[in-house]
Amino acid sequence: MTPDAPMESISFAELSALLAAIFEHHGTSPEVARCLAENCASAQRDGSDSHGIFRIPGYLSSLASGWVDGRAEPQVEDLAPAFISVDARGGFAQPALAAARPLLEAKARTAGIALLAIRNSHHFAALWPDVEPFAQQGLVALSFVNSFACVVPHGGHSALFGTNPIAFAAPRAQGQPLVFDLATSAIANGDVQIAAREGHQLPEGYGVDQQGQPTRDPKAILDGGALLPFGGYKGSALSMMVELLAAALTGGHFSFEFDWSGHPGAQTPWTGQLLIVIDPSHGAGNNFAERCEQLIGRMHTAGQLRQPGDRRYQQRAQAELHGIQLPAVELSKLRQLAVAGT
Amino acid sequence: MTPDAPMESISFAELSALLAAIFEHHGTSPEVARCLAENCASAQRDGSDSHGIFRIPGYLSSLASGWVDGRAEPQVEDLAPAFISVDARGGFAQPALAAARPLLEAKARTAGIALLAIRNSHHFAALWPDVEPFAQQGLVALSFVNSFACVVPHGGHSALFGTNPIAFAAPRAQGQPLVFDLATSAIANGDVQIAAREGHQLPEGYGVDQQGQPTRDPKAILDGGALLPFGGYKGSALSMMVELLAAALTGGHFSFEFDWSGHPGAQTPWTGQLLIVIDPSHGAGNNFAERCEQLIGRMHTAGQLRQPGDRRYQQRAQAELHGIQLPAVELSKLRQLAVAGT
Repeated sequence: MTPDAPMESISFAELSALLAAIFEHHGTSPEVARCLAENCASAQRDGSDSHGIFRIPGYLSSLASGWVDGRAEPQVEDLAPAFISVDARGGFAQPALAAARPLLEAKARTAGIALLAIRNSHHFAALWPDVEPFAQQGLVALSFVNSFACVVPHGGHSALFGTNPIAFAAPRAQGQPLVFDLATSAIANGDVQIAAREGHQLPEGYGVDQQGQPTRDPKAILDGGALLPFGGYKGSALSMMVELLAAALTGGHFSFEFDWSGHPGAQTPWTGQLLIVIDPSHGAGNNFAERCEQLIGRMHTAGQLRQPGDRRYQQRAQAELHGIQLPAVELSKLRQLAVAGT
Repeated sequence: MTPDAPMESISFAELSALLAAIFEHHGTSPEVARCLAENCASAQRDGSDSHGIFRIPGYLSSLASGWVDGRAEPQVEDLAPAFISVDARGGFAQPALAAARPLLEAKARTAGIALLAIRNSHHFAALWPDVEPFAQQGLVALSFVNSFACVVPHGGHSALFGTNPIAFAAPRAQGQPLVFDLATSAIANGDVQIAAREGHQLPEGYGVDQQGQPTRDPKAILDGGALLPFGGYKGSALSMMVELLAAALTGGHFSFEFDWSGHPGAQTPWTGQLLIVIDPSHGAGNNFAERCEQLIGRMHTAGQLRQPGDRRYQQRAQAELHGIQLPAVELSKLRQLAVAGT
């Protein structure tokens, strides 16, 4: 999109409804459409350009390919006092989480900590929307999701790990929760796609081409190349941990395991996801939200003026006041998609 | 130590007994001495030079200063089906973990996941010895510990976070558990101390001097300077998370909160520690150890030939065959410490 493209404003509710109509029109159940639309509209509202409406063509392409089941009904399994599994049955991870969320929150409050292991699921979205709601309820949440083989392990020569983000959410006594969502790759795939679309070069150290040579060209990374982990061997170890927690522990696929070559157009990784939710009210940390506020105050004093999530909340507040600003041409395309085929 | 210093061999059991005698001689209870000695001897055996006998003077200095209570008896609190706290009562974290370990393992097996929140504790050791034993029993374990203000938050100008390591342990079907222990600082404090002692310069990007300017001089970092987080804003966010999990959630101190200025010689951070232990046998990931083995096999194929923990296990195997090799002069100093004052 060019800076001087005509813009149009749309409310969050309108964008959610429009996206839900698109999903449903392209083969999802109403419940799945509602989940994905709210997730995607939230990302767009909060300024997460790489996970907002930019993702719609990928979702629809994957649905059209038959790779992901937009009508799957997740099966929740209550396995132990603090252990829940969901078989997403080849559908999306967000409806699987939605189906288990009340039980997960209840178990976390009763047991003090609880785990949700989602398998056989497709995750194509930002991870922070999965954890933020727990912190809105006073809980601490962690999530891990693997994706598709596009990251070279430290010291290696070929892609094996996914971008494998880690998301964390913590309640604050004042203000919105502290939330971060970090790819363990040096850059998120969505940002590489945006750079390729917009013709930007990337900083050094983010990726390699198909010969395994360092490159700053996002197209060379996407065309048979691969990303590097962030922070050298440490980021690589964390990415490995995400594979183990999101796939091995859940019964899902590793990022390198699934074969989507029989489904041209497939873009949604078929893996697993882990959530860990903690209720801080049980122990001596029952003043957690106040303590979180104290830490943030000191981070500010130490010179870190912007905290994780701040930009999203600022964008959200702007969108609540003035609506979500989208290029008119993009909005027009979306409206077409709600009534016509891809 | 110079490369041609005369070396002496000592068995793990002998070194443990010697260190226990030193701790007890300097004011700890026999149980605390046993815990700390086994931990420290394990680090030395496994080649973790920065957390082996190198730490003994720091331990003894802290004990002599009255800053840490070497005779504290940890109080275990069973708060919920999956939530345990320990008040370490101003003593070391390792005896606190030892006191709660059987209950933590039992809760993890019954509930599927369990949490141990240690507060009012001093942690001056490597973190991997705290998690590896769970993986030896087929469990997955995570731990987080904060330390003392020596790391500048991303974009900031003064030290606030500790080195704040994250440790992870996972069982493998064949071979020793997969274990990593990563400081979220660009370098561990122990390694800065060793570089200062040995007169090495550090790579760029590891620290700043007392004016907040980048420096490669380990002495300038230790003398009023500070470390940087690893991996830029991502490592900084993880370090912040460790403060929240290890201190806010447990009821312990943040790394910037405690004031040891009234105890000259104090070196052991008075903070908190969190452990999360998961039993993978409950769900569809009940073949976790086999899956872990598969991932490691593929990491090897992708060119990552050395896995986290490999070097430790190799050093351990050597030590089991040939004993732990120490400079004779160091061993002589230790033997003195077991019978005389510091």
